[in-house]
Amino acid sequence: MVQGMLGFEPCEVMDPVAEDEVELTRAHDLDIPNSLADLFKKSDRERLRHTYGAAYPESIKAFYGRFEGPPDAVVFPESHDDVRAVLDWATEEDVAVIPYGGGTSVVGGVNSDLGDRKVVSLDLARLDQVLEVDEMSRAARIEAGIFGPALEDALRPQGLTLRHFPQSFEFSTLGGWIATRSGGHYATVHTHIDEFVESLKVVTPRGDFESRRLPASGAGPDPNRWMIGSEGTLGIITEAWMRLQRRPRFKARASVRFDEYGDAVSATRAIAQSRLRPANCRLLDKREAMLNQVVFDGSHVLLLGFESSEYELAPLIEAALEIAADHRGRCLDGAVYTDEEATSDASGKWKDSFLEGPYMQSNLMTVGILADTFETACTWNRFHAFHAGIVEKMRDAMQRVTGSRGFISCRFTHVYPDGPAPYYTYVAPIKPGSELSQWAELKAAASEAVVDLGGTITHHHSVGRIHRGGYDRERPELFADMFRATKKTVDPAGILNPGVLIDP
Amino acid sequence: MVQGMLGFEPCEVMDPVAEDEVELTRAHDLDIPNSLADLFKKSDRERLRHTYGAAYPESIKAFYGRFEGPPDAVVFPESHDDVRAVLDWATEEDVAVIPYGGGTSVVGGVNSDLGDRKVVSLDLARLDQVLEVDEMSRAARIEAGIFGPALEDALRPQGLTLRHFPQSFEFSTLGGWIATRSGGHYATVHTHIDEFVESLKVVTPRGDFESRRLPASGAGPDPNRWMIGSEGTLGIITEAWMRLQRRPRFKARASVRFDEYGDAVSATRAIAQSRLRPANCRLLDKREAMLNQVVFDGSHVLLLGFESSEYELAPLIEAALEIAADHRGRCLDGAVYTDEEATSDASGKWKDSFLEGPYMQSNLMTVGILADTFETACTWNRFHAFHAGIVEKMRDAMQRVTGSRGFISCRFTHVYPDGPAPYYTYVAPIKPGSELSQWAELKAAASEAVVDLGGTITHHHSVGRIHRGGYDRERPELFADMFRATKKTVDPAGILNPGVLIDP
Repeated sequence: MVQGMLGFEPCEVMDPVAEDEVELTRAHDLDIPNSLADLFKKSDRERLRHTYGAAYPESIKAFYGRFEGPPDAVVFPESHDDVRAVLDWATEEDVAVIPYGGGTSVVGGVNSDLGDRKVVSLDLARLDQVLEVDEMSRAARIEAGIFGPALEDALRPQGLTLRHFPQSFEFSTLGGWIATRSGGHYATVHTHIDEFVESLKVVTPRGDFESRRLPASGAGPDPNRWMIGSEGTLGIITEAWMRLQRRPRFKARASVRFDEYGDAVSATRAIAQSRLRPANCRLLDKREAMLNQVVFDGSHVLLLGFESSEYELAPLIEAALEIAADHRGRCLDGAVYTDEEATSDASGKWKDSFLEGPYMQSNLMTVGILADTFETACTWNRFHAFHAGIVEKMRDAMQRVTGSRGFISCRFTHVYPDGPAPYYTYVAPIKPGSELSQWAELKAAASEAVVDLGGTITHHHSVGRIHRGGYDRERPELFADMFRATKKTVDPAGILNPGVLIDP
Repeated sequence: MVQGMLGFEPCEVMDPVAEDEVELTRAHDLDIPNSLADLFKKSDRERLRHTYGAAYPESIKAFYGRFEGPPDAVVFPESHDDVRAVLDWATEEDVAVIPYGGGTSVVGGVNSDLGDRKVVSLDLARLDQVLEVDEMSRAARIEAGIFGPALEDALRPQGLTLRHFPQSFEFSTLGGWIATRSGGHYATVHTHIDEFVESLKVVTPRGDFESRRLPASGAGPDPNRWMIGSEGTLGIITEAWMRLQRRPRFKARASVRFDEYGDAVSATRAIAQSRLRPANCRLLDKREAMLNQVVFDGSHVLLLGFESSEYELAPLIEAALEIAADHRGRCLDGAVYTDEEATSDASGKWKDSFLEGPYMQSNLMTVGILADTFETACTWNRFHAFHAGIVEKMRDAMQRVTGSRGFISCRFTHVYPDGPAPYYTYVAPIKPGSELSQWAELKAAASEAVVDLGGTITHHHSVGRIHRGGYDRERPELFADMFRATKKTVDPAGILNPGVLIDP
């Protein structure tokens, strides 16, 4: 596939260094009181497994057996009060604390290479229960460490769903989604986790932060929104009341082909600006369509989907197809309707459209091919110049860094009335042994281009440590001061996730 | 009407004190540099007109000619840079600055009674232009001081609308809406102004805050959300890029009667929890239905409305009516469909359903009757106990304070999947001359009940000075510390709207 589709010569398949061959740097001594001792694990195995997230440079280092900056220990609190006790201890002992959900961060959010500073990884895996379901308000109180599939399993008997399926769904946690403003796979209306948060319970070094369960409020700036997206720098989310939905019963989908990308973008924009609000509205450019093995005829493909429990979808999807046809889109097979059992839409399906993602990266890594992604959002008026600029700059950067102009494709993961969220995949042959420096140069080119051309450094991958450069240029300077003052208030010793989002 | 409907004995009609009979306290001397002198007005007329908003106690005082704490002057900046210059001067001279939009605050947000402190009212009325329209992204850059009707007039030629119609629409401004998290009249999906803000330009005493135009982002906590709802305490919004919509063409509406309030609430909840997303979903209890002269037969009425430009509404409204029928709702006249010209849905209609509001208050004031409202939101699981508690406590309070159990009615202004936003109107005969103390006692009872019973002190009226007591109990204590640190960062001298939201 690599040779045929991308035209690159793969190298011989390489094997990663086995876990038991990895040598970790010695841990600092930690002075842990007896009352907390049972929560800590200090084995090299746990330290190794909490060293990295899923960012490309982390995967490369792991592949070669280099685990840099492992935590000195991993702590597994079993309750909100345990988290409280751990933060009190860490503040007292000046130990940095890295909150750890599923470890799927692609931006260095959980990597803890702090040199001489003592550091523990705080893994929320034992806070994994749905504590309470309020069927009348369709909401549930849920612990932060629960993984996507377990969460959906717990809600299924009541016919409810959080209906938030980020690409990392299987391997990531509710708390991680809230801390990083995760994006689900639905294209419109409620795209980020933000809107599903009814209230939060957070432990900060200065005390607990607990907001009131409310469907909405206009009382001052929204307290939840000050915590959502704080990436573990202000506090550790231990539980949240989340807004749920009934499982949709009716579904309709269709795919539309376009010869010209401009037409495809215009059609997608017109649908995004309608009140049709499709559940799926994913525009794949011709390369992305090929990479995903959707079509191979050079057409761009718009994947449309609608879901409902209450009404027939034909009028909506037919209206969307009419808009697409107005822009020379061809729907060869018409719309497909399904009336599914409530239980059949679970965690299986969300993967179908994402098969190319993280798995491809890992596989290509073994044959000397770099595959990475970056994602953003910009307003529609900028998009064409933005897209042309990104493609040109990345082609040039790949040429300069790897000697090949490489492969770059684009899909829209989410669409808004005022702009799309483009998601780019780029692939290039890379020199084994030089992956890190080559990747760093390409990543820098991508981040610079995204911010220069008027996008956001991240629509849903978050900032972490890897996106700091772009983030620092994007956010209002005064906001950084406001955020810093806030951090100083709740985390005066600066123990929480140092290096993420802001320097103290 | 008062006698027939409410059963109260009105007093003789009283006349308000005329404007030219009012005596204002003397203004402090202000040391205004020549470069700014043209922007200031020091006439008693301007001072008087900027003393109060539209809160009940303010209206009462104005009625009797008591203007307490008038500003020492009113400043009318003509540009962002003027606002900057005024704040620099005010910081230097330690003059408090009260941002003033349309003066419709019902929570004391613009009242400036600061005793010995010098204070100016900063009126944004001259920043009233739509500066730029991006038709492709359906967004516009708009100055903060523009009033609702002028804003809609400027957008109408392009077939666009902000489609945000708070009850104060005619008399309030874009900047005021953003600063106070105003609620529009649409019942679902985007209820508050928050979601329509694409980017902000704000002057703070410490410098400018300008966010990037983006359809969405996941980069850290949303900077806009730290400013939206800050009620003039962190900075003065001078302009914003706002998300617009096409004017809807198809409309459908229906009204449904219920004998039992429990059925009406259940039906409304089921519709709110569907994906039907009605534009209007306003449940009037029997007293509210009577007060609004909708029906007089003792039934509770659910007003439903749908809007679209792209598809027929029959399947949606029929599905909603079916849900209502499942809960014993009777739709006598069926759904009414209209296919209107783009221009006909403008500022006229939004008023129809609000006629009883502010006008009623002013009229009843002249005959010794107090009418006031309060609004909130709570989750569905709490609603029945909440509602029963509110009605009982307000009846008791009216009995105690006025000797009459008074009149209290409820409508839902907005509905969410996890709860409604109930809006209460209460009316009682009051003793001319004692209005202020009687009102204060009733308002305290209402605020205490709302917060005790698990609601929010305000769904869309904001906090200002009047809701401070309830707000201080509702918001997380730690959030107050975070907010205070932020305020200290952007307004170190504490000149901006002192007393609103937080004490320094």
